[in-house]
This record gives sequence, C-alpha cells and structure tokens, in this order.
Amino acid sequence: MLGRVNHIAIAVPDLGSATATYRDVLGAKVSQPQAMPQHGVTVVFIELDNTKVELLEPLGEESPIRTFLGKNPSGGMHHICYEVADIAAARDQLKQAGLRVLGDGEPKLGAHGKPVLFLHPKDLAGTLVELEEV
Amino acid sequence: MLGRVNHIAIAVPDLGSATATYRDVLGAKVSQPQAMPQHGVTVVFIELDNTKVELLEPLGEESPIRTFLGKNPSGGMHHICYEVADIAAARDQLKQAGLRVLGDGEPKLGAHGKPVLFLHPKDLAGTLVELEEV
Repeated sequence: MLGRVNHIAIAVPDLGSATATYRDVLGAKVSQPQAMPQHGVTVVFIELDNTKVELLEPLGEESPIRTFLGKNPSGGMHHICYEVADIAAARDQLKQAGLRVLGDGEPKLGAHGKPVLFLHPKDLAGTLVELEEV
Repeated sequence: MLGRVNHIAIAVPDLGSATATYRDVLGAKVSQPQAMPQHGVTVVFIELDNTKVELLEPLGEESPIRTFLGKNPSGGMHHICYEVADIAAARDQLKQAGLRVLGDGEPKLGAHGKPVLFLHPKDLAGTLVELEEV
C-alpha cells in the first residue's frame, strides 16, 4: 500500500529562523513561505534529492500544530506522509484492520492540492501518519 | 551540503508489534530485525520506494533511546538522517556556524557501517539530525 515518503513535517516556532538554518547553514534548497490559512500553517518546503521536508509554523489561533508546539517549544518532527495510489481503498483497508482515521474519515485536500488523510498516532507506534493520494 | 534523506528513525516500545503493523496492515517491505548491541538498539528497516524508515527498539539497559521512550511511551519519530558527501568537512562547517555536534565530535560508524554524526536538536528546530557520509 505504501509508496514513497512524500515528506517529513517538522513543526517550528520560528519559520524564518528555521528556514535560514536549513538554507544558509545546511545548504539546502528552500521554497518561499506559503500561507495556508485553511490548514492553519505557513509552510516552507525543503527540497532534498529524494523527498521533501516541510517546515510548519502555526498560522492563526486555531492552528492544529499549536498544541504540539506547546509540548515541544523548540519544535520537532510532527508527521510523516506516505503516498498511496488510492486513498479511499487504503482508508477502507486500514479501518478494517482496526486503525483509526482522524476526523470524519473523509479525505481532505492537503497542502499539495491532493486528497489526504491522517491516521491516529497511537495505532502507529506514536507517529502521526499522513496518507496522500498521488 | 545535504543530499538524500537516508532514513527517518522511529523509536518503538515493541518492535514485533510495530513491524507487524507496517508489514501486514500497511503492506510495506520490512527487513528481519538486526540487533546492534554497539548502538543499543534492535533495528527493522522499512524499505519505501525512495527512502527508508528505521524502527528502533531499545537493546540493553544503556540504550540511548530509553529516555526518549520514557517520555514517549507509545513511541515516536526520533531522528532524521541526511546524507553528506564529506562528513568531516560538513562537521567543520557546521561547528563554525555555531551548531553543536553531539559526543566528542568525531564521526562514528553507524548502523550501515558508514561514518555518522548527530547534531544537537536545539540548534535544528527541536529535531535530532544525523549526518551520514555516503
């Protein structure tokens, strides 16, 4: 079911500072920041040779990453996103196996404009997993 | 400086259970468990199309991931490993920029038999970063 690792997301308290470290110190290729108010985050993409890292900064009071940053004030790895070919089929198969899908279980359009779902971290060794249909 | 994402490491309290979930539920290709007493972990590699996930279970009382699992009993994302072409040059450049290298600063042989270093998470948005020379 799992395809490529689409991205690893890192929640950061200060996007400008984190971006500067990746760009100027680690010499990585970074995107311009993109505000995504519908997801409550501002995102910078770090383009590696085989996958991406997404730096996420909270946007708005209702940002879904505020709680995480409250517990991890310096920031930290927030989730990992795997690609799947058919997200509805993947969801049905995972639910049948007893995994919990977050929210109402319906795929939403993610940061790349593709359907995504999140799986409950308690069912996956403490790791928040996003599935993205590609 | 940064090349590919070599792997994302996830610390797990129960390697058998986590491996079964990735193999049987998520349909991923998983390796046999490999005990690495010199690193204090038993490792299962999950082979994705573009990178690897490493599941780490503590091995021995002195395992470096016991503290992490004490704080995250269900498990969680532990570190991200980036490939670099010249680890000594990378280290010198990063130290000059003020980043802290863990331990004595000398590369050690990592789980793949290649030289590795770890960078202080406080200097990288709360993320433990491993560099591996390839």
